[in-house]
Amino acid sequence: MKKRIFIDMDEVMADAYWAVVHRYESQFQVTIDRSLIYEKKLWELIPDDHYDIAFSFLQEPGFFRNLKVIKGAQDVIKQLHKKHEVFIASAAMQFPNSLQEKSEWLDEHFSFISWQNRILCGHKYILRGDVLIDDSSHNLESFEGEQKLLFSSPHNNNVQEFTRVNNWDEVATLLL
Amino acid sequence: MKKRIFIDMDEVMADAYWAVVHRYESQFQVTIDRSLIYEKKLWELIPDDHYDIAFSFLQEPGFFRNLKVIKGAQDVIKQLHKKHEVFIASAAMQFPNSLQEKSEWLDEHFSFISWQNRILCGHKYILRGDVLIDDSSHNLESFEGEQKLLFSSPHNNNVQEFTRVNNWDEVATLLL
Repeated sequence: MKKRIFIDMDEVMADAYWAVVHRYESQFQVTIDRSLIYEKKLWELIPDDHYDIAFSFLQEPGFFRNLKVIKGAQDVIKQLHKKHEVFIASAAMQFPNSLQEKSEWLDEHFSFISWQNRILCGHKYILRGDVLIDDSSHNLESFEGEQKLLFSSPHNNNVQEFTRVNNWDEVATLLL
Repeated sequence: MKKRIFIDMDEVMADAYWAVVHRYESQFQVTIDRSLIYEKKLWELIPDDHYDIAFSFLQEPGFFRNLKVIKGAQDVIKQLHKKHEVFIASAAMQFPNSLQEKSEWLDEHFSFISWQNRILCGHKYILRGDVLIDDSSHNLESFEGEQKLLFSSPHNNNVQEFTRVNNWDEVATLLL
């Protein structure tokens, strides 16, 4: 059966998390303990007075435009797009300077997803469809579709409530 | 009962239609017949070889940033926001250069609508909610909510299928 699938961008298609980690480590000449990164939130691993600085990385021109594509995303999303109805749904409105960058990033890496199938929003409970693939348990909780897939990211390592997909191969197994 | 209401931007909150007409008239030093504007699509009233030029106005830097607010929109949307759950839903993804401009325009004129309640999308049938206020019959047709309100614009003057609202006072009468 053809499903309507919504796919989050950051941490699912685009590697924003490790981009922040590397940017932070470069700026402060430190190495964040890799064993702790899967135990705690990134914000718990840096000094309080570094929080605003790390957050500001997300607002730097080019940050979202230059993110790496998460491994397997292009191939599997292309196959999902052929079999199902695929929408990209990114909570990008928080960072207005990212809007055009995200659009250009999709043009470069996911040109087969037309503008009609790209959604920049805040809340995701307003989406009407069958599947949401997201790294945020908050977004999955409020989504009213039948299938909620938690895409693994260091920050959600302890979340138990949802069907977890560790990589795009596992998404393929479930949906293709 | 609290309703989830989606409100389109162009022709409903922001006066894009007359901005194009005035921009066109200024460029070509002509006056489009006002009696015909309510009978035909704008594109039927200009020579074929002007179509691309008129369309390109929408891609000019500043076009969306400088649109006038449609009369009554601010007051009524502020009241709707207090009583209901209001989302702005604009099919802005067609014009990536408009994304930031639309965000800034909302910041200026509708700052009480937070980023979480702003949606830039293509198709609107992916929206889950009760009411859609839109000038496009195409968007209203595919919306699955219970109430579809056609906001009057010269280009939809002949559409009969939906409950028509001619201005924001009429929206207030129906929803407040």
